[in-house]
Amino acid sequence: MNITERVESLREWMRDNNVAAYVITNNDPHNSEYTADYWKCREWISGFNGSAGTAVVTLDSAALWTDSRYFLQAEEQLAGTPFRLMRDGLKETPSIEAWLEQELERGSVIGFTASVTPMDEFRVYEQNSHFEARTFDDPFKQIWEERDLFSIARIVTLPLSVAGKSAKKKIAELIARFEADFDSETAYLITDLSEIAWLLNLRGDEIEYNPLFEANVIIWRGKCVLFVESDNIAKPIKEYLTKQGVIQYDSWELKTVLKNLAKQNVVFVMSPSTNVAVVSHFENPIFRPSYLALPKSIKNERETAGFRQAMLYDGVALVRFRRWLDEKVADGSIAQETECTISDRLLAFRAENREFLGLSFATIAGYAAHGAIVHYEAVPETAAQLRNEGLLLLDSGAQYTCGTTDITRTIALGALTDEERKVYTLVLKGHIALSRVRFPEGTLGIQLDLAARYAMWQEGYDFGHGTGHGVGSCLCVHEGPQQIRKDLRAATQVPFQAGMTITNEPGIYLAGKFGVRIENILLTVPADTTSFGSFLAFDALTLCPIDIAPIAIEMLDETEKEWLNAYHNVVRERLLPLLSDEADRQWLEEATKPL
Amino acid sequence: MNITERVESLREWMRDNNVAAYVITNNDPHNSEYTADYWKCREWISGFNGSAGTAVVTLDSAALWTDSRYFLQAEEQLAGTPFRLMRDGLKETPSIEAWLEQELERGSVIGFTASVTPMDEFRVYEQNSHFEARTFDDPFKQIWEERDLFSIARIVTLPLSVAGKSAKKKIAELIARFEADFDSETAYLITDLSEIAWLLNLRGDEIEYNPLFEANVIIWRGKCVLFVESDNIAKPIKEYLTKQGVIQYDSWELKTVLKNLAKQNVVFVMSPSTNVAVVSHFENPIFRPSYLALPKSIKNERETAGFRQAMLYDGVALVRFRRWLDEKVADGSIAQETECTISDRLLAFRAENREFLGLSFATIAGYAAHGAIVHYEAVPETAAQLRNEGLLLLDSGAQYTCGTTDITRTIALGALTDEERKVYTLVLKGHIALSRVRFPEGTLGIQLDLAARYAMWQEGYDFGHGTGHGVGSCLCVHEGPQQIRKDLRAATQVPFQAGMTITNEPGIYLAGKFGVRIENILLTVPADTTSFGSFLAFDALTLCPIDIAPIAIEMLDETEKEWLNAYHNVVRERLLPLLSDEADRQWLEEATKPL
Repeated sequence: MNITERVESLREWMRDNNVAAYVITNNDPHNSEYTADYWKCREWISGFNGSAGTAVVTLDSAALWTDSRYFLQAEEQLAGTPFRLMRDGLKETPSIEAWLEQELERGSVIGFTASVTPMDEFRVYEQNSHFEARTFDDPFKQIWEERDLFSIARIVTLPLSVAGKSAKKKIAELIARFEADFDSETAYLITDLSEIAWLLNLRGDEIEYNPLFEANVIIWRGKCVLFVESDNIAKPIKEYLTKQGVIQYDSWELKTVLKNLAKQNVVFVMSPSTNVAVVSHFENPIFRPSYLALPKSIKNERETAGFRQAMLYDGVALVRFRRWLDEKVADGSIAQETECTISDRLLAFRAENREFLGLSFATIAGYAAHGAIVHYEAVPETAAQLRNEGLLLLDSGAQYTCGTTDITRTIALGALTDEERKVYTLVLKGHIALSRVRFPEGTLGIQLDLAARYAMWQEGYDFGHGTGHGVGSCLCVHEGPQQIRKDLRAATQVPFQAGMTITNEPGIYLAGKFGVRIENILLTVPADTTSFGSFLAFDALTLCPIDIAPIAIEMLDETEKEWLNAYHNVVRERLLPLLSDEADRQWLEEATKPL
Repeated sequence: MNITERVESLREWMRDNNVAAYVITNNDPHNSEYTADYWKCREWISGFNGSAGTAVVTLDSAALWTDSRYFLQAEEQLAGTPFRLMRDGLKETPSIEAWLEQELERGSVIGFTASVTPMDEFRVYEQNSHFEARTFDDPFKQIWEERDLFSIARIVTLPLSVAGKSAKKKIAELIARFEADFDSETAYLITDLSEIAWLLNLRGDEIEYNPLFEANVIIWRGKCVLFVESDNIAKPIKEYLTKQGVIQYDSWELKTVLKNLAKQNVVFVMSPSTNVAVVSHFENPIFRPSYLALPKSIKNERETAGFRQAMLYDGVALVRFRRWLDEKVADGSIAQETECTISDRLLAFRAENREFLGLSFATIAGYAAHGAIVHYEAVPETAAQLRNEGLLLLDSGAQYTCGTTDITRTIALGALTDEERKVYTLVLKGHIALSRVRFPEGTLGIQLDLAARYAMWQEGYDFGHGTGHGVGSCLCVHEGPQQIRKDLRAATQVPFQAGMTITNEPGIYLAGKFGVRIENILLTVPADTTSFGSFLAFDALTLCPIDIAPIAIEMLDETEKEWLNAYHNVVRERLLPLLSDEADRQWLEEATKPL
């Protein structure tokens, strides 16, 4: 079936069900950031495979909303399909609701798939009086014939030496926190897959980049009940779970259990983004933010040690890659490389480490103008050939057995323009200011954001993405609840606490020219306690030289130079003993020499 | 009557009215920051005259809550009275509600004066199930025998050349904005005195420091109706108001008019802080933030020009004062001066200007350890004698016919310790960083605050007060809706717009030692528009040298020195032509010479 045929098959289903419009996403039932292929209905029906986007099909039109990161890609992928591209965030672009109000007669039914629609998002549509929002059992079960089956996941335990706290203890602490607010007769439903993986010290391989597995958990009467595909649970894992006090049910039993508990009038507490299918079992569920997001975000000593170990592994691979790249630049053979081939080479260096499990997200290798496309993902057909000039933006991360990494470096491949140097240095100044900041306990992400932007704002530059996100421990590379960014939202109102990770990734992107981003993962650590209170600081976990070549040194003040020199000292001291090749060692010495 | 007798007379009234506790503030019916003496019931009953504080009297106990600014003062003033000091903000201090829950039996009546209790504050008590919150007609009318009468206010017009927009136009714009949300059959009640003064281009003299007058305004059916004490309205003002299309009623008619409109089921829109007496007329009033706070905060060209003129007046007085002070320091006669005498001298220099109307708030002159008391107000009995050493913190402001000023300088009176120099320089670094910041339109106060604190946080210092507040144009020195501070509240979530004023007043206070604060008023001005959007910047309106003597110059970077030199150039260029005395001119040259 081509895209047009797929849309027609949905319309047939819509006519049969008296539905005037259908809203299609790539969501899974757990509101996951990355989802298994099974759930990629929006991609299937539209052909657009960006990470963010919503398709809407009516009986005679179709449109797809996505944000500026994907305008170019969506334009190409939607060409020749029935879908019109709706450029989200532009003034002239109507919201989905506004568009539906235009397209549909008053009282029309708009359909959503109950199992993949978060309740809080559905509520917004439900409150619109122009149309009737209604949820349905997944229509793609019928119309998407070649739909993948769920893959069999391999679920493994995360050793206590890495997790730092047993599942039993985490469960006991969760129950204590929960019962401080409610009682043991109230049930707590956990549907977030990263929270379940963290709580149980289990990891899976069901979703690319994210070591998760499909599951749900109910906490009730002081017990932890896990619902998971029993085929995915090997006998040792079953035994492990039993030892941790986890009662195990098969996935398909969740519905029955929820129904029974609802019938017994058990009150359920759950996230506001729980899917409508689950919520619909209950008369008056209590929605509240997660009990696990905050404890998960505060890394214990073992998790922190794992991060540091992972950074050593990653640092070695990155240094070896950088030396290889610099040699290509020096001998001119860089011209035989593309954005894809160098990403593969970097992957190969990482993969030489036996503790490497895979990437933590799709590598972004953006050369020259491609560097200005924030979430660019090179594909062999269109990947840029590298040249002996300009800037290469390289954002990548890995999963190791002990931790997760996420790093961006922007690398000079040869001669640079004054504009490239200026922009690079402004980004570096922001990166340094946020690295150096000290702040009282209780400070929020929204307050810290200025550090990263002050220098570039002086010169009229800015960037649209967030400045920092938490990073999971052997988990998802994007983790809440804390964030640093310039807009006020729940995530930027979370007070920083010692043990939280946060990326520091300011950037500047000049469309059609180049992009610069410099990113380390920082660990929040206690600083001094003075008569003015307890202060926190950031410790850079990431270990990799920041390219000195593009720096306009006259733009750095002494404090900034000192920071960069001190950082490079740490990088050199920690990585040098791990490099066996003398040429790599020499490269590192050169790359970290004081300014 | 002494304090004990006053408390007893209130208790007698409480027993007659079956009231178990009474809450007493200095509030007026308009939720004003400064109130006329008539409304200072808390001060009368407790003897404590700080600007912030709430007294609560039960039948057998009495307590007064105030914040850390007033701990020392309240301790002294409450000594020997029935009032126990409740130090607000300390962990061990119960809230008023918590204390009342301890002190009173369940179901007890807590009394509030209806006309001075803001509805939003009353609601909090009303929702407490432990007691019954009830409002009363002002009991102090009976028990406060020597209570002042309302003073006769002198109401004058603010010339159009200063206001920049006629009352007629402001009223028309208000009605347009209001009717865009509601219709002309809905009424809008304005009780905020500064909003009424701004809307009508009138000023009064009823309240110290604030050029306000007692009034209320109703907007209804496209008309503006003013309720004001008719004795205060001279014939020319009456005629002026008629010309501006303002319908005038006497104050006492407000109640009747509100009752009649309520009977006709006219829906009223009003501020959530409208007093309970007014709100009680209506079944379902609509509470929403002011329609006037934002337009009032955005200064037009004439208002801006007035600010600049006022800064010239103030700058001349300040330079003459500083030269006088420096001569006292030089010849040793400083030892004959106190915090009070120098405040008087500064006032005298200001008062030589014929456009000077009075101070915009009580001068804070805090020498040495007194400088660490944030809202210190020297009184002759306890004012510190100055010495030829240490730091003098001087925070003062004036009302001129064309504008309002607010400035803090911290001045070296002689030898300084290293700690004094370090702290002074950290405050200066924060002041400079906030002065220099550029930021995209839409940036909030909570985001900008870091600029003022970054440098001091590095060294473990902080300050508890706000970093910046708006300043009215020939109006109140504290004006909303925007603020820069480190806590998230409505005022720090207001996007900055060109034309807004904001003070820049970081400080550091070392209890028992000294305090430093450096404050200018800044004007928000457009900066560049780039491909990243429209940027705003701040232009320092205040014109007065920042004392160079206490600077630890090695702590300033080149950019900071450049900013200070550029600022001092502007100060010198603008003030020099206005100084007739050669010695003053020489002092200014010296004080503004480049670092």
